[in-house]
Amino acid sequence: MLDSISIIRQKIYKVIFETDTPAGQRFDIILISAILLSVLAVMLDSVEQIHAHVGLWLFRIEWMFTILFSVEYLLRIYSSPRPLQYIFSFYGIVDLVSIIPSYMALIFPEASYWLVVRLLRVLRIFRVFKMFRYLTEANILLRSIYQSRRKVLVFFIAILVMCVIFGCLMFLVEGPAHGFTSIPKSIYWTIVTITTVGYGDITPQTVAGQFISTLAMLAGYSIIAIPTGIFTAEIVSEMKRESGNRNCGNCGHRGHYKDASYCYHCGVKLPDSEV
Amino acid sequence: MLDSISIIRQKIYKVIFETDTPAGQRFDIILISAILLSVLAVMLDSVEQIHAHVGLWLFRIEWMFTILFSVEYLLRIYSSPRPLQYIFSFYGIVDLVSIIPSYMALIFPEASYWLVVRLLRVLRIFRVFKMFRYLTEANILLRSIYQSRRKVLVFFIAILVMCVIFGCLMFLVEGPAHGFTSIPKSIYWTIVTITTVGYGDITPQTVAGQFISTLAMLAGYSIIAIPTGIFTAEIVSEMKRESGNRNCGNCGHRGHYKDASYCYHCGVKLPDSEV
Amino acid sequence: MLDSISIIRQKIYKVIFETDTPAGQRFDIILISAILLSVLAVMLDSVEQIHAHVGLWLFRIEWMFTILFSVEYLLRIYSSPRPLQYIFSFYGIVDLVSIIPSYMALIFPEASYWLVVRLLRVLRIFRVFKMFRYLTEANILLRSIYQSRRKVLVFFIAILVMCVIFGCLMFLVEGPAHGFTSIPKSIYWTIVTITTVGYGDITPQTVAGQFISTLAMLAGYSIIAIPTGIFTAEIVSEMKRESGNRNCGNCGHRGHYKDASYCYHCGVKLPDSEV
Amino acid sequence: MLDSISIIRQKIYKVIFETDTPAGQRFDIILISAILLSVLAVMLDSVEQIHAHVGLWLFRIEWMFTILFSVEYLLRIYSSPRPLQYIFSFYGIVDLVSIIPSYMALIFPEASYWLVVRLLRVLRIFRVFKMFRYLTEANILLRSIYQSRRKVLVFFIAILVMCVIFGCLMFLVEGPAHGFTSIPKSIYWTIVTITTVGYGDITPQTVAGQFISTLAMLAGYSIIAIPTGIFTAEIVSEMKRESGNRNCGNCGHRGHYKDASYCYHCGVKLPDSEV
Repeated sequence: MLDSISIIRQKIYKVIFETDTPAGQRFDIILISAILLSVLAVMLDSVEQIHAHVGLWLFRIEWMFTILFSVEYLLRIYSSPRPLQYIFSFYGIVDLVSIIPSYMALIFPEASYWLVVRLLRVLRIFRVFKMFRYLTEANILLRSIYQSRRKVLVFFIAILVMCVIFGCLMFLVEGPAHGFTSIPKSIYWTIVTITTVGYGDITPQTVAGQFISTLAMLAGYSIIAIPTGIFTAEIVSEMKRESGNRNCGNCGHRGHYKDASYCYHCGVKLPDSEV
Repeated sequence: MLDSISIIRQKIYKVIFETDTPAGQRFDIILISAILLSVLAVMLDSVEQIHAHVGLWLFRIEWMFTILFSVEYLLRIYSSPRPLQYIFSFYGIVDLVSIIPSYMALIFPEASYWLVVRLLRVLRIFRVFKMFRYLTEANILLRSIYQSRRKVLVFFIAILVMCVIFGCLMFLVEGPAHGFTSIPKSIYWTIVTITTVGYGDITPQTVAGQFISTLAMLAGYSIIAIPTGIFTAEIVSEMKRESGNRNCGNCGHRGHYKDASYCYHCGVKLPDSEV
Repeated sequence: MLDSISIIRQKIYKVIFETDTPAGQRFDIILISAILLSVLAVMLDSVEQIHAHVGLWLFRIEWMFTILFSVEYLLRIYSSPRPLQYIFSFYGIVDLVSIIPSYMALIFPEASYWLVVRLLRVLRIFRVFKMFRYLTEANILLRSIYQSRRKVLVFFIAILVMCVIFGCLMFLVEGPAHGFTSIPKSIYWTIVTITTVGYGDITPQTVAGQFISTLAMLAGYSIIAIPTGIFTAEIVSEMKRESGNRNCGNCGHRGHYKDASYCYHCGVKLPDSEV
Repeated sequence: MLDSISIIRQKIYKVIFETDTPAGQRFDIILISAILLSVLAVMLDSVEQIHAHVGLWLFRIEWMFTILFSVEYLLRIYSSPRPLQYIFSFYGIVDLVSIIPSYMALIFPEASYWLVVRLLRVLRIFRVFKMFRYLTEANILLRSIYQSRRKVLVFFIAILVMCVIFGCLMFLVEGPAHGFTSIPKSIYWTIVTITTVGYGDITPQTVAGQFISTLAMLAGYSIIAIPTGIFTAEIVSEMKRESGNRNCGNCGHRGHYKDASYCYHCGVKLPDSEV
């Protein structure tokens, strides 16, 4: 009896947690679809016209998904060999947070509170991040980003220092009369300019201000080369490492193509690529 | 007699389908010019002043091109050794779709229907894509894009998730009063911001909104480094393969290393490098 | 006597045309300064307030520079060993074109004509391009651009085709009521969007239009990776070739750093770098 | 007695100037925090509402930091073995300039003068640059930027020449009636366009102007590939050198190839590679 329960538990675990069995893969695809649909329902509900017409249906759909995700959450805890480790893991917390808002809306039905609840409900979308687990190609990207983290940090500090300086200069040159009402607002304008977004809600009016903003634009335009260069260099070296991972068993030569079947140096058959 | 027909058919085939004979090249150049001219006519016809003055002439020109392309389409079917294969190929369908709208406008002459017809007529422009067939340089680009398709997909999913999160946050922070009327509209704003387009039709008004949009801008500004890095790494490795320019005499595989002695695909000894 | 004239002519040639003697270098620096000053004078003259106050002085300065450049032009013809070759060379034509507008303004003093003359006068700025002759570092850039010209052409054709398609779609979806008055104007809007400039003078108003423009933005945002990838790959290989240009006289090893003094393989002193 | 003063002085020197001892590191962290807080106080003081409520407190905080930085400046002079060298070094001047504005505001308390004082006070922010000293990762970036300085300069001259030409063209085509009031303003517009910022405060109105601006946009959109390519190529080669991580025991030069046997700088035999 206990044994059969244990078998069912193991089966649930395999379906819910594992991704390399057909059943597990089907479960994940259904889960991702459900998440996307529930997010879509929240998004559509925010459009006034849609809310007026099918708001009740969207409310029901949201509850259906909330119950579904709650059951899934409980099954995850039940089937996990180490429930506490799951609960306090990143995904465990995200799973819980993505179902709480709906229940909170039940206990405190005041209209004014609803808005705050929605803020938390938005977090449900983080669940989509789980998708990354299933994409092995993401590893090379994440590793490259991880490798370049320090250089990118240095770059970001340099950008921010530059933004503060340009912001202060523009506040002094243009002043509150031309929309630069405070240094923080001027820094906001500088970031809009340096990232080349350029809304045009605040624009320099004086000749000096236009000259300084020209410098900020050219700086922003060329500085983008720096993170691109850093990341490209990392990904080039990551990809080289990836392709270098296959050694010839006969002569020891490395750096074979992913689609290589024979060693280019000694002509002996290579072992199959693990990738 | 039959033989001479067959010879004419072959000649037509050579002129229309092949691109390595002088006659075939001349035909292609004329065809591309005709396509560009017909597209230009459609474009000019959309300008109200031009339509009022030379609308009739543009109408005639359009019909001349329609008849020309129809004859070309029939000749392609006639001369092709496997007509069905051509008809259902990508270019066969594009060729057909690019002449249908004009004929449809004949049968249903209602004014209101014209606009719908024009929507299909726009597809005629896809014919220009055929140009790519003649540019061998496009191969290296297409192969690099193909190689990096998975990584770029992961990147796009990450971007979209980010856009949805930022869109929800801005909807909650700014709200309908400042132009963020719904979550889909907020996501539209987020994409406008993250891609650094920045129309300025919707702009954040609150301090919190400006702070969040600053984060979105900086994210969008640096994230562009990722697809650039991916694609650059691919094109560097594609060009390295191409520059080797050594083909295997046995299986025809290309892109061997300069110091390769054996084909990585079939293991046969390669001829010595000329480089 | 003739001999001394010939010597003077040679001296003039050395000063004006050559760039590796101290006198030639000084002449070039003075020339570039004069060009920049004359361009600055034209630019300042266009500002209404400045024109009202010092317009006469700027007029005199312009004439001074015109006479100076005319004398220089005649001396170039005189001292050149093959005057015709100089006159019909790129720089010869640019030199002539940059002095003509002022003289044309003398013969036809009508006020209305002045504006047209100014259009030609603007070309004087091309003279600044001569600066490139003195910067050897520009070679590696120009060669990389030249190497990647075909791939970039393919890329530009793809961009333009995409712009026409998106332009037509937006014209049909948004229509003249929302500012998309004709297909050419819609294409203008598409280029503003795809290049991420985003003026905001025309913006999509309908949901369908905003969705399509979102696709255009994302396409434009990621497509920039392609020319960057092409050019980076070219410049990487150009720089490798540059550094590979130094061979060790003793062991024949290549690929020494620019600042290397000894062969890294055999330790023998390397010949001096020509760069 | 003198000896004990000398010991205290040395201790102060170690804490203030050195960064490799625990005490020195703690001091630097506190110093950076203090600088960031004082900058934050200046920024908040510029917001009218905050100034009205807590302006007096911010004034006191500013004075606290001014006194703190003054004491630090005097200690730096006192403890430095070569005080004059410190005073006239880049950081010495920055340190002095960042405390002067507050004292100047004391002697000349006129309200109108305050604004000018603030302009100098803004320079206090440069002090943050000292942070770079502590980030070794910045070296690789700075060296890559240094290596590519000439190519980037050529690129910037080309951009500026292009901006002047496009600016003149747009001034002639659009004219003062459409916001292009002078050539300098047209150049400002061109830089806004080429860097893809696109405020939309000035936009082309005529067909010819829109066509020319389309060319400027496409140029700006693709030209960004050039500095990115230059910098990426430099950082790739810098990282390759760095990864070798082999130092010459004789002259200390770094960045030898993995297969290098002799130092490229002094020709002495290198120790075997550990990689």
